[in-house]
Amino acid sequence: MISARTSNSICLCSPKQAARITKTVVPFHQPYSTGLGCLVALRLGSAVSQSSSHHHQALQSRSFSTTRDAHLKDFFPVKETAYIRKTPPAWPHPGYTEEEMLAVVPQHRKPGSVSEWLAWKLVRLCRWGTDIATGIKPEQQSDKSNPTTAVAAQKPLTEAQWLVRFIFLESIAGVPGMVAGMLRHLESLRRLKRDNGWIETLLEESYNERMHLLTFMKMCEPGWFMKTMILGAQGVFFNAMFVSYLISPRITHRFVGYLEEEAVHTYTRCIREIEHGDLPKWSDPNFQIPDLAVTYWRMPEGKRTMRDLILYIRADEAVHRGVNHTLSNLNHKEDPNPFVSDYKSDADHQRPNPALKPTGFERSEVIG
Amino acid sequence: MISARTSNSICLCSPKQAARITKTVVPFHQPYSTGLGCLVALRLGSAVSQSSSHHHQALQSRSFSTTRDAHLKDFFPVKETAYIRKTPPAWPHPGYTEEEMLAVVPQHRKPGSVSEWLAWKLVRLCRWGTDIATGIKPEQQSDKSNPTTAVAAQKPLTEAQWLVRFIFLESIAGVPGMVAGMLRHLESLRRLKRDNGWIETLLEESYNERMHLLTFMKMCEPGWFMKTMILGAQGVFFNAMFVSYLISPRITHRFVGYLEEEAVHTYTRCIREIEHGDLPKWSDPNFQIPDLAVTYWRMPEGKRTMRDLILYIRADEAVHRGVNHTLSNLNHKEDPNPFVSDYKSDADHQRPNPALKPTGFERSEVIG
Ligand SMILES: [Fe+2]
Ligand SMILES: [Fe+2]
Ligand SMILES: [Fe+2]
Ligand SMILES: [Fe+2]
Repeated sequence: MISARTSNSICLCSPKQAARITKTVVPFHQPYSTGLGCLVALRLGSAVSQSSSHHHQALQSRSFSTTRDAHLKDFFPVKETAYIRKTPPAWPHPGYTEEEMLAVVPQHRKPGSVSEWLAWKLVRLCRWGTDIATGIKPEQQSDKSNPTTAVAAQKPLTEAQWLVRFIFLESIAGVPGMVAGMLRHLESLRRLKRDNGWIETLLEESYNERMHLLTFMKMCEPGWFMKTMILGAQGVFFNAMFVSYLISPRITHRFVGYLEEEAVHTYTRCIREIEHGDLPKWSDPNFQIPDLAVTYWRMPEGKRTMRDLILYIRADEAVHRGVNHTLSNLNHKEDPNPFVSDYKSDADHQRPNPALKPTGFERSEVIG
Repeated sequence: MISARTSNSICLCSPKQAARITKTVVPFHQPYSTGLGCLVALRLGSAVSQSSSHHHQALQSRSFSTTRDAHLKDFFPVKETAYIRKTPPAWPHPGYTEEEMLAVVPQHRKPGSVSEWLAWKLVRLCRWGTDIATGIKPEQQSDKSNPTTAVAAQKPLTEAQWLVRFIFLESIAGVPGMVAGMLRHLESLRRLKRDNGWIETLLEESYNERMHLLTFMKMCEPGWFMKTMILGAQGVFFNAMFVSYLISPRITHRFVGYLEEEAVHTYTRCIREIEHGDLPKWSDPNFQIPDLAVTYWRMPEGKRTMRDLILYIRADEAVHRGVNHTLSNLNHKEDPNPFVSDYKSDADHQRPNPALKPTGFERSEVIG
């Protein structure tokens, strides 16, 4: 536990795996940042820096014959069988224009009641806990007086620190949508009532979050410490969401809205650091993002850098933020889901775009 | 309790509601089968018999001004707001050809192990309990030595008995797919593994079952006894499925496969009774099925009788039967879901059609 938390290069890779990768791919760079071995190994022969490419060239051929099974590249392979070619994503991604993605900004909806304030403070507490658990140093913190909107910090995070955050957060982020969707489904069956289209959006949200997780998993495998944290966090978070949604769907959606504010903030800061050249591994022109991401978001050629990927993911989070803040404003028993409904042929009211409304739509704006 | 079970016309309508409907629509037919009041009231002025239409004509106009709120027609209205026109179904139905629907037959997969035999016997026990709870008489039973395939019985069920069965069964049927989908989703997040496309099919199954329930709910509102039964059954069944799926997805899918065998059997017998003229209310050319069903299954004009509707629903059950028996035959950790995967361009192996394989596909047939 201590070793994982105090290590200089906090990495998700299990020590064994990291060592294996480091040995295979970059043995001449010892002690090369062990934690980031996985980032280099992601694409053999493409993600390595120019200067050392001849070493890797030699090593690659060896690695293919001796340690191929252990490569990260194979940790999470495309599933193919004798008959089956591939299994496409369940919910095709709706896609965004570049303008939409660039327009996303971190923003905060002011709590409107004591319970909303408590929900927000709980999110802040989770953020604080994650910062500690992932070893964020004081100089890496952004302005604490504007926690959800300030993205500048004295010192950037490392690529490994970002990945730890991303994987931990995304493994949690897929829970609330599934819990809410399931509970509404069961309620519809049990109370013999229609659902009004909420389930679809909630389940799609949880699927989208799972795709975020799987995308980052393609970049690094967590070690046992991180894996244990993820197990424990899911156990706590699933049950908390379950009870909370049974008690108050309104507050739970608000809570998730606040969580998504944090997600937008996190990814906005990451994009900024990539743009400032603070994350050289990810700015490397040879760095390749996982195929899974290219397929899922249908990323156009020439627009497949890590920055592009994070822009897509941030836009997804902005959608969740707008959706959850809006759902929290609605009557969960009666109101149709505005994000999947057809609007009357009245130019003033069209299906709302949640990405464009950081604080969510008020009920009067979308239901009428 | 006793009154609901021993009444001659067991009905889902709450006594109050049934009385209200009967009073409003068919007061001159007292004691007209109270239980079926709801079926007649479903479409004011269309589902009533020709001979009494003049009475109803007069009553309708009165009823619209005095008791409109209590009409079944409004119990479950299309959701419309000032801005929103409608909320389309989340998972569009894939549709069937008439040949596919007519080709469905009740069939039974022989248990291949002790645990499968136990799963089957448990399903038989549930069937027996449902028969008792819904007041099926001995002469209404079909041949007990061929329980899953024999559809002939000495005496038909009444429309009300069919509806009780349908609503009770469908309120349960939506549970396993949601539980399995949720548990696989959580496992993917927690174990950081891909799902291989199973979740999609499982959630879609649960959605499809919920549409069955909502369709029948448009025809009759259950009374308090039935509602209580449904609450209790969901509580027991949800937890049983949750634990069972954690212990053995293989056996749970087999169990659901057996449940779906019963569903196909139930609907096949119902179709047969409609065709034999045993269910006059549903053969009445003025009987209209709910709009919700027409929209969801995209039922072509001129093919919208109750028999047509049950043909669609039976085909859905045949799909679930084939899917669950197949999933039970696969390796739930490794194998891709054959029903959403793309197959290699080899004419011998295409995406399998679960409706055509009552006993499910063996692993070697679909994975290779
Ligand atoms: Fe996410
Ligand atoms: Fe999110
Ligand atoms: Fe069903
Ligand atoms: Fe079914």
